[in-house]
Amino acid sequence: MPETPVLTVLHGDRLPPGMQGIEAAAVVRYTREDGLAEALRGADALFVYDFLSKAVPGAWHAADRLRWVHIASAGVDPVLFPGLRDSDVVLTNSRGVFDRPIAEYVLGVLLAFAKDFARSAELQSRKRWLHRETERLTGKRALVVGTGPIGRAIAGLLRAVGLEVTGVGRRARADDPDFGTVHAADRLVDHLPDADFVIAVAPLTEHTKGMFDSRAFDAMRPTARFVNVGRGELVVTSDLVDALRDGVIAGAALDVFETEPLPQDSPLWTMENVLVSPHMSGDFVGWRDALVEVFADNFRRWRADRDLRNVVDKQLGYVPSTR
Amino acid sequence: MPETPVLTVLHGDRLPPGMQGIEAAAVVRYTREDGLAEALRGADALFVYDFLSKAVPGAWHAADRLRWVHIASAGVDPVLFPGLRDSDVVLTNSRGVFDRPIAEYVLGVLLAFAKDFARSAELQSRKRWLHRETERLTGKRALVVGTGPIGRAIAGLLRAVGLEVTGVGRRARADDPDFGTVHAADRLVDHLPDADFVIAVAPLTEHTKGMFDSRAFDAMRPTARFVNVGRGELVVTSDLVDALRDGVIAGAALDVFETEPLPQDSPLWTMENVLVSPHMSGDFVGWRDALVEVFADNFRRWRADRDLRNVVDKQLGYVPSTR
Repeated sequence: MPETPVLTVLHGDRLPPGMQGIEAAAVVRYTREDGLAEALRGADALFVYDFLSKAVPGAWHAADRLRWVHIASAGVDPVLFPGLRDSDVVLTNSRGVFDRPIAEYVLGVLLAFAKDFARSAELQSRKRWLHRETERLTGKRALVVGTGPIGRAIAGLLRAVGLEVTGVGRRARADDPDFGTVHAADRLVDHLPDADFVIAVAPLTEHTKGMFDSRAFDAMRPTARFVNVGRGELVVTSDLVDALRDGVIAGAALDVFETEPLPQDSPLWTMENVLVSPHMSGDFVGWRDALVEVFADNFRRWRADRDLRNVVDKQLGYVPSTR
Repeated sequence: MPETPVLTVLHGDRLPPGMQGIEAAAVVRYTREDGLAEALRGADALFVYDFLSKAVPGAWHAADRLRWVHIASAGVDPVLFPGLRDSDVVLTNSRGVFDRPIAEYVLGVLLAFAKDFARSAELQSRKRWLHRETERLTGKRALVVGTGPIGRAIAGLLRAVGLEVTGVGRRARADDPDFGTVHAADRLVDHLPDADFVIAVAPLTEHTKGMFDSRAFDAMRPTARFVNVGRGELVVTSDLVDALRDGVIAGAALDVFETEPLPQDSPLWTMENVLVSPHMSGDFVGWRDALVEVFADNFRRWRADRDLRNVVDKQLGYVPSTR
């Protein structure tokens, strides 16, 4: 451990707040994507605050003494490239910050579908009073694909309001504390027909990329709604568009997309059974401070040579659950 | 009890479904508002299926042998006029049918406010990708004004997702099983400043009419949202409009209105911090069948001379809680 370590901070338009304590204990190099390689040379640690940046692989050649990378997100796919994966560099993430906010967002879109809020807003804009009957959420079935902390928070909240929830994870199990039953991801298609709501919150890995394709949508109920709060690349977007257009499924709430921002020519913008939000489901007021707090806690541990929190299994592509 | 009683059914555009069993056990006279007086003459019971109709008082003079009135709603204000109140005619309501659906609606609008869904929809309609930070619902405070079964279902659901909930009822109490603390309605204004969400679900009586006036809105936080799933007449609408327009409160979700349908010239239609829905918060798919089932159960009890369910205390204006 050097006397004063060099910490590189990759940021976008905003600098991370509340870094004073860290600045007192490290030489901090703030950089945007274009200066990353230069800023990595001689650096001991990298804080990827711009957590959607794809610039790390291209600058990796300059990382000549890096020992630790921390990313300000739950998903680590932007930094899981062979150079980092096969190195001794430790990778940590921001597990925990987004769990409950994303679960609230998911519950909100389920209620928005059940209570037909989008149509109410549209009718209100035309001053039309049109009574409709709406759905009850209690007793409906949700399949949560992804059994990490965010998936667990979603399961807990949906169960608290009366939905029946099952999970889909890497391995099948019958006695999961949050899900009860977890089905194996390689049997996903067998379990999709049971669900009123299918919620994608899996980490993006080579095993999960494109797992929601036409075969998956064909297996869903025509009344089912699909929710994606994981990664856009979990979905074959053209297959989703076809499924929504052809009534194969009833609707979708999408917070993440294969290309972000969602391109202007995407048909998803204008489909009336689709709710688009701009990758913000977990971003509550104060989230930036919370992210820096998670990093600062790990920074103090790193300096004190204590075990880091949220160490990613770089082969799996996520932090293994301790449960 | 006559051999075959005469039952008058007041309906609107739709007839109640599933009446075959009742038709086999009574002479059933179906009528709309304009035929009500004639249909009441000689009738033993009245089923007010058109539960928002205000025609009963004007036809009451013809009710020469009526012993029972059942209304297909939770609120009984349309039939609580002096002639019925001061008579020996028993009044029952449809307590229970709407509890959980209305609670889901309330949770839905709270999440819609917290997660800024209306703005997301508006931005989507313009294909604009604009990230925002949103609110967490966990830890927020809700004040539920009305401690009947619907208010209790709301309290249970909001508490299940992490809100702090207190109630406002006729009498203060400290150990309510659903609310914990219930404040007395005559101290409402003292407790409004504590709430992030104020939810009106009280029965409409002479004591509650207009209880949400400028004095009440002035006492709320500027960040507070007001939700009305009770009756429009609980609110002084012009005071609410002023409070919303002047930023005295942050928003409102309104399912009921002083005049329904909401008049075309109401400013509520176009206020961007207002969610308007057409008196449908409890009306789930199957609600009409459920309402007739509640009536049919009471009809069988009435014919068998057993105690009726949901007997309204005509002085209080609602079914007293048994808890």
